[in-house]
Amino acid sequence: MNLKEILTERSKSAWNDYLPHISIDCVVFGFHEAALKVLLTKMKDSEEWALPGGYMGKNEEMNIAAARILYERTGAHDIYLQQFRVFAEMNRSEAFFEGYPDTLWHKQRFVTIGFYALVDYTKVVPVTDEISDTCEWKNINELPAMIMDHRSITDMALTTLRRQLNYKPIGYSLLPEEFTMPELQKLYEIILGKKLNRGNFYRKMTAYDILDKLDEPRKGGAHKAPNLYKFNQEKYMAALKNGLKEGW
Amino acid sequence: MNLKEILTERSKSAWNDYLPHISIDCVVFGFHEAALKVLLTKMKDSEEWALPGGYMGKNEEMNIAAARILYERTGAHDIYLQQFRVFAEMNRSEAFFEGYPDTLWHKQRFVTIGFYALVDYTKVVPVTDEISDTCEWKNINELPAMIMDHRSITDMALTTLRRQLNYKPIGYSLLPEEFTMPELQKLYEIILGKKLNRGNFYRKMTAYDILDKLDEPRKGGAHKAPNLYKFNQEKYMAALKNGLKEGW
Repeated sequence: MNLKEILTERSKSAWNDYLPHISIDCVVFGFHEAALKVLLTKMKDSEEWALPGGYMGKNEEMNIAAARILYERTGAHDIYLQQFRVFAEMNRSEAFFEGYPDTLWHKQRFVTIGFYALVDYTKVVPVTDEISDTCEWKNINELPAMIMDHRSITDMALTTLRRQLNYKPIGYSLLPEEFTMPELQKLYEIILGKKLNRGNFYRKMTAYDILDKLDEPRKGGAHKAPNLYKFNQEKYMAALKNGLKEGW
Repeated sequence: MNLKEILTERSKSAWNDYLPHISIDCVVFGFHEAALKVLLTKMKDSEEWALPGGYMGKNEEMNIAAARILYERTGAHDIYLQQFRVFAEMNRSEAFFEGYPDTLWHKQRFVTIGFYALVDYTKVVPVTDEISDTCEWKNINELPAMIMDHRSITDMALTTLRRQLNYKPIGYSLLPEEFTMPELQKLYEIILGKKLNRGNFYRKMTAYDILDKLDEPRKGGAHKAPNLYKFNQEKYMAALKNGLKEGW
């Protein structure tokens, strides 16, 4: 079946199953090889990329719906998910389905609720489905052309991440359990969009008292083995509750 | 007509005019006599208070709908409005209309988009309508019992205000054009929920270089006339763009 046939088929049950006019789009962030990445899909017969998205069941809680949509794409459970903004502009999505009948579920006006998700890159296996032929990580600095308003949804998610860095467990959710101080600094630099002074970063992070230094440094590699850290979850969550005081 | 009759009557055209399942609720903040206030309404035949709210026209932009809803309640144009969160829990509002027929517009499941508004208290004239017999300012520290989840919507709006104090024009929108430094400090203290040191506050505000001191102090009163300030709009907006650096 081509895209048109699949959508027409799906449209029939969608009217029964989901709340009309409301969709969910997810900006899934992962951190890998010193780069911030976003999970994108490409629909069949389309040259442009899209955020993973879906709809809310008539008797489904919103957060459950968002988690379900992400599970279908990533195979990952217990993902850190936060709604961050509603995108409601008229004709933001309708034009995409020009040429389809007006009764098509997808062609109605959709107010979409943007979520961002923070995942441990190593635990995600991107999944394609019936209507998408690709699902891949893309570097935040090299985003391809995207459908509808998905690029501005992505940009707004990154802005939100930047503003929430001091009171949401962003480092904790994006990094593997054990990491080096330069890796943590790199993550902060990418989210904040600027270079940070190494000595200052080390001092501030140490002053927060939210990291535990491991006894064993990282093994392997030609250089001096770097020290490994992990978040002290209890102290980190307590510190975030009031917001980390320091501006970067 | 009593409330039931009015709602039943309104319900008929609502199905034609508005997007189903989507509502807007507004937390309107004003600052008066050193207190942060919220504008609440009380429906006929109800003992509990409610946030001003409404629906989005099928061909109406979301922000226009929110501004229209507020205008109807406050008579004020050009209000500073920001969406801040979606509240979607199942049965958050449906139970309120128990006893009404299931075809009633108001009884469907509503996903509500929370907006906060910042208004100059002196420019607002609270307006009642057909279904509300009261519309008044209530002190944020003395909120009465509220319907549905309107209390948690209000609390979340205040939390948002606190987090956005450094990168949204919150002081600018809540204060009259001219104000004293103690008045500005009081506003910050209420939003942040803590006392601030007077000397530090003065130093930080001065260091931001976003205020213009007026030549003439405030007239009248028995004490020494206090200095008046106003925001230098250009500098203030430029500073907010990157976020005021200092944590409070």
